[in-house]
Amino acid sequence: MRDTALPIDDRGFSYGDGLFETILVRDGSPLLWKYHMARLQSGIERLALPRLDLAAFDSLPAQCGPGLKVLKLIVTRGSGGRGYRPPELAEPRWRWTVSAFQPSAERWFGGVNVRCCELRLGLQPRLAGIKHLARLENVLARQEWGDDAIAEGLLLDSEGSLVEATAMNLVWRRQGRLETPLLDRCGVRGTLLSALDDTLALHWLRAGLEALLEADAVWLINSVQGVWPVRRLDDSAGNCLKQWSLEANDAFRQAAHRQLGYPLNFGD
Amino acid sequence: MRDTALPIDDRGFSYGDGLFETILVRDGSPLLWKYHMARLQSGIERLALPRLDLAAFDSLPAQCGPGLKVLKLIVTRGSGGRGYRPPELAEPRWRWTVSAFQPSAERWFGGVNVRCCELRLGLQPRLAGIKHLARLENVLARQEWGDDAIAEGLLLDSEGSLVEATAMNLVWRRQGRLETPLLDRCGVRGTLLSALDDTLALHWLRAGLEALLEADAVWLINSVQGVWPVRRLDDSAGNCLKQWSLEANDAFRQAAHRQLGYPLNFGD
Repeated sequence: MRDTALPIDDRGFSYGDGLFETILVRDGSPLLWKYHMARLQSGIERLALPRLDLAAFDSLPAQCGPGLKVLKLIVTRGSGGRGYRPPELAEPRWRWTVSAFQPSAERWFGGVNVRCCELRLGLQPRLAGIKHLARLENVLARQEWGDDAIAEGLLLDSEGSLVEATAMNLVWRRQGRLETPLLDRCGVRGTLLSALDDTLALHWLRAGLEALLEADAVWLINSVQGVWPVRRLDDSAGNCLKQWSLEANDAFRQAAHRQLGYPLNFGD
Repeated sequence: MRDTALPIDDRGFSYGDGLFETILVRDGSPLLWKYHMARLQSGIERLALPRLDLAAFDSLPAQCGPGLKVLKLIVTRGSGGRGYRPPELAEPRWRWTVSAFQPSAERWFGGVNVRCCELRLGLQPRLAGIKHLARLENVLARQEWGDDAIAEGLLLDSEGSLVEATAMNLVWRRQGRLETPLLDRCGVRGTLLSALDDTLALHWLRAGLEALLEADAVWLINSVQGVWPVRRLDDSAGNCLKQWSLEANDAFRQAAHRQLGYPLNFGD
């Protein structure tokens, strides 16, 4: 159901016991739909939610109307159970909302400033990769700064390995190789990242901050915003750790924006 | 508001961005009220929710009616914000529900069987101790077993230290000393545990499973259920790790049950 209130006993609300997807929709056609549905399905299996016919969602994008929209789809385990224990026969509940969306061309082509968050993500392999509703770590991390000149915050895990930004994935180029952090212990596996993994040679690895300091280009990406090249990285106290020159003809951004129908180059 | 539906954009639902308390109420009088309000206040500060006048909640227990009830009080950051980023001026939202409650005298006096969960809690000092809404780790852990002969599951953290059970705190006696795990990196600091900490000599420590194997008594406790002495501990494959004989005149249970108005001994 669209925009409908939730009963107080919904387990998504009580415990974060559910999943969501935020999907870019252009004139009623979704981008990366197959990847969003695959991640949702993976989340359903990981949380052991009852089977759900995802085909029921196929008709939603066309109902979003003209222009660029973000369709948010939320699936929860529904109501019931005794405390944390799910009910024997859970009936999943789903809701969707639509909002207008305007991406930032300034960030695509002018790049962004990023800081390191103090918060470290806890290691939780059972939840890693999926987009579940229990996202309080991201909320706390996003509260660490209010300065609009900082577009995003980098997150390391409790052992000091790079993971992601608060709402975007992280990719860098080092010695000609495209690298991205393993998302097997925490973090969300973005759909744009998965799509690029199918088309580019992405190297998944466990690496600390030093990998970024050795990189000659760094990008933040997601399936709604597209690609933000990183211009400058600060530590959590605001001291500059490194700056990068932006590349006018950025092949990585082009590959990613092709997936989303976004402009490949400035002025396109 | 009591039992009222939530708007779809409530941040408690979207991100687990909120807190809850489950409070035992007997004939309209709450137990451990001061400890519940203190933990709620601590959570409000940790999540940087706007200030909230907790005195507004003082009138709720009297509205619960006669008999033994559980009052669940939920506070969220409310609606709004851009993604994970909270709104500049959040307006917290709260809801409450009441349900009848019947504790298990069989578990108080007959003890319980407990298993070790496979899931390890991620380390997140920023959320440790408070009772926030992002409890998916507890839900996953509670899904590990379905056998009603197992009352609870023990949780270790990602480094192998004891933390708690899925919905209860853990206390044991070793060499005459009452010990309980530090809750500074994960876990929830229960209100009954806090109340006992004010009246007994509890030793807080970082310890692995071996501490339980050396213990001559083990208890699970919370402010609603009271005290469950552990009779037997299994590993996650169902192999018995240790059994304990129950003590008829259990001074720890007596001290805890005094806090809750529960019977001190079998037959009371």
